[in-house]
Amino acid sequence: MVHADASNFSAGISKAEAYAQVLEQASALFDGQRNWVCNTANTASLLWHCYHSLPEPSNTVNWAGFYVLDPSNASQLILAPFMGKVACQTISFSRGVCGAAARTGETQLVKDVLAHPDHIACDSDSRSEIVVPVRDREGKVVAVIDVDARVEEAFDEVDREWLERLAKVVGEGCDW
Amino acid sequence: MVHADASNFSAGISKAEAYAQVLEQASALFDGQRNWVCNTANTASLLWHCYHSLPEPSNTVNWAGFYVLDPSNASQLILAPFMGKVACQTISFSRGVCGAAARTGETQLVKDVLAHPDHIACDSDSRSEIVVPVRDREGKVVAVIDVDARVEEAFDEVDREWLERLAKVVGEGCDW
Repeated sequence: MVHADASNFSAGISKAEAYAQVLEQASALFDGQRNWVCNTANTASLLWHCYHSLPEPSNTVNWAGFYVLDPSNASQLILAPFMGKVACQTISFSRGVCGAAARTGETQLVKDVLAHPDHIACDSDSRSEIVVPVRDREGKVVAVIDVDARVEEAFDEVDREWLERLAKVVGEGCDW
Repeated sequence: MVHADASNFSAGISKAEAYAQVLEQASALFDGQRNWVCNTANTASLLWHCYHSLPEPSNTVNWAGFYVLDPSNASQLILAPFMGKVACQTISFSRGVCGAAARTGETQLVKDVLAHPDHIACDSDSRSEIVVPVRDREGKVVAVIDVDARVEEAFDEVDREWLERLAKVVGEGCDW
């Protein structure tokens, strides 16, 4: 199988089945490869193609990727591999949905970003967002998975459950 | 302006005008930010949206991104930020179009990948490819820009000229 085929999802599968394929493919890609840039780049691709193989609201995802701890500033996140439009380069731990996930170590599920007092509008098209912390093998938060969508309430408890499982695979499968 | 607007290209502009916007936006994004992961991630997004704003053959681009020197193996490249389907994680300097660009320091413009004896098929949909070396401020090749398209002869001397200009902005605008 050529690598690109990992991004091909069958039509008509459920969201949980699509996420299960993401996890399976990510685990296979990380086998023997612990470089975090390489692995988060392929994971962002898997997530993007997963969402765009699904019906609404999942296919309204307009950004899927990672922020990591900024090596030059311990109190902020910095942009890492993603799929979507150009994004904010750095995010303070004290600001926004990504900052809250990194600061608290808890998943942030925002059903309506316009009603969220501290949302950072990198893209005015985004209407809902989920951000999941990624921890290394020692349990330290080293990154976040960030996914945005063009409609309100695009994410639910299924997304939370599977993205948290993916975060564990990514966090433990890379050297940070 | 929110960051995502940097990825919006006007309809009807020429390829040279679109590349000029990529260069202008990349230079603005790199002002005060030299993190290579962050900067190549945003550059891949700019390139992707540039190509998909243009008519055929440019809008048949199916992969746009970077490979960098593998910190764990000096004789190979490793996957870095990109837009598109899941890709090969590592590429030896001795293999493929990306390897040739890194090894020779010369742009590789492949009009028909099926006729190229040493093409690595990460994606069987790809039919043409351009790979441009990226040099740091000391002139050392540290990365390549790799762009693939679904049709033969998608790239020409205009692409070569502008991607080489972009490679200079990226190479000198980041700490590697």
